[in-house]
Amino acid sequence: MRNIRLTIEYDGTKYNGWQRLGNTENTIQHKLENVLSLMSGENIEVIGSGRTDAGVHALGQVANFHTRSPMTTREILDYCNHYLPQDIVVKKAAEVEERFHARYNAVSKKYMYRIWNSHIPTAFYRKYSYHVPEPLSIEKMRKGTAYLVGKHDFQAFSSVKSKKKSTEREIYSIEILKERERIDILFHGNGFLHNMVRIMTGTLLEIGLGKRKAEEIPLILEGKIREKAGVTAPAQGLFLYEVYY
Amino acid sequence: MRNIRLTIEYDGTKYNGWQRLGNTENTIQHKLENVLSLMSGENIEVIGSGRTDAGVHALGQVANFHTRSPMTTREILDYCNHYLPQDIVVKKAAEVEERFHARYNAVSKKYMYRIWNSHIPTAFYRKYSYHVPEPLSIEKMRKGTAYLVGKHDFQAFSSVKSKKKSTEREIYSIEILKERERIDILFHGNGFLHNMVRIMTGTLLEIGLGKRKAEEIPLILEGKIREKAGVTAPAQGLFLYEVYY
Repeated sequence: MRNIRLTIEYDGTKYNGWQRLGNTENTIQHKLENVLSLMSGENIEVIGSGRTDAGVHALGQVANFHTRSPMTTREILDYCNHYLPQDIVVKKAAEVEERFHARYNAVSKKYMYRIWNSHIPTAFYRKYSYHVPEPLSIEKMRKGTAYLVGKHDFQAFSSVKSKKKSTEREIYSIEILKERERIDILFHGNGFLHNMVRIMTGTLLEIGLGKRKAEEIPLILEGKIREKAGVTAPAQGLFLYEVYY
Repeated sequence: MRNIRLTIEYDGTKYNGWQRLGNTENTIQHKLENVLSLMSGENIEVIGSGRTDAGVHALGQVANFHTRSPMTTREILDYCNHYLPQDIVVKKAAEVEERFHARYNAVSKKYMYRIWNSHIPTAFYRKYSYHVPEPLSIEKMRKGTAYLVGKHDFQAFSSVKSKKKSTEREIYSIEILKERERIDILFHGNGFLHNMVRIMTGTLLEIGLGKRKAEEIPLILEGKIREKAGVTAPAQGLFLYEVYY
């Protein structure tokens, strides 16, 4: 069996996320599986690097699937982009060794959270950013990121109350880039709990608005209580940016 | 009467253009007039700098309207952005002298045509660019622009067969900016005939693809026959960029 690795970009606006339990119809994984099964005549199962929630976008989601199809990777890429909905794009298709697994082999991930920081909203980025009309202090937000980087128990920054699994994760870096009205926060880490990026962003935004202090973060981490952290920033600002192997 | 000048950004995807004869319901002008009339209790007429076609976007459309409303320009701007659909944004509102007329006083305009030049399509710019998968020679296209700049009869680059009105226009500059897959062509001129930017773009694209030569442009201009010029590039790549007064 051949093993094909795909790099995928999608506008998540219309979808119930990458994968969904129960009614899976309106998911990105399902759309891909449909097209690839039609292409190969096989019952293709696509393995993603991880889920993205409803409304979340991706610039570099990675997935793999096994097939007996003799098509070249270029033909597979072209077939996908011809038959997939226009809001899902396969950017790369490459043949990889049989044991490559998009989820198990992922060693780290980078997410981007995009903020539109202006009194004036945006017609073009309205579905691809979170509009924050009040002035934000990037300096204060950067102070906050310094407390988040490193190995911590991120229980307080997760929406799932898992008692069995470890909630320890390591964040390698958090970069804040500002270009006019646009603020991009890039989070690179070895893994992220459910809603973790959106809750970290919500907390950093409250710091940037002066509603709370960067120095509170160590206490929030220690306390491990979700309610002590900031709000969950909305899905439409979040992008799965890159998956590292 | 006060005279208020608005700078407007819109995602034209869903609309039948700025203005439309007949059924005007689904136009940007109509949406604005509705909100402003509701705001002021008057029957507001909005004067745009000019029309944009169905599906064409704007980053800096300019319009003005007369009102007796005592609201500040900041209040007007906020009211508009609160009640307008999210794909129409008022970026500026300013009080101007009574005789200012957004159409008559416009001295020049800048349009941008955005191309996505990559074998791989784009999930995010799909509604805001024209996807050209084949390689384009920017150098050849720039050669083409040199023949279009200046004062010419642009009859061949217009979809309207007007015999009365002058079809002479002056183009001050055409800039081609390339950033990775994205190519933006910026056209600055004292006025543009109907579909003129899209036909110039279609012609430049045929030159960039090697389907025709830059040197043909003077002959096309001289011939004044629409069919001799290139195809009309699709609406979704076109943006009214700025209006100068």
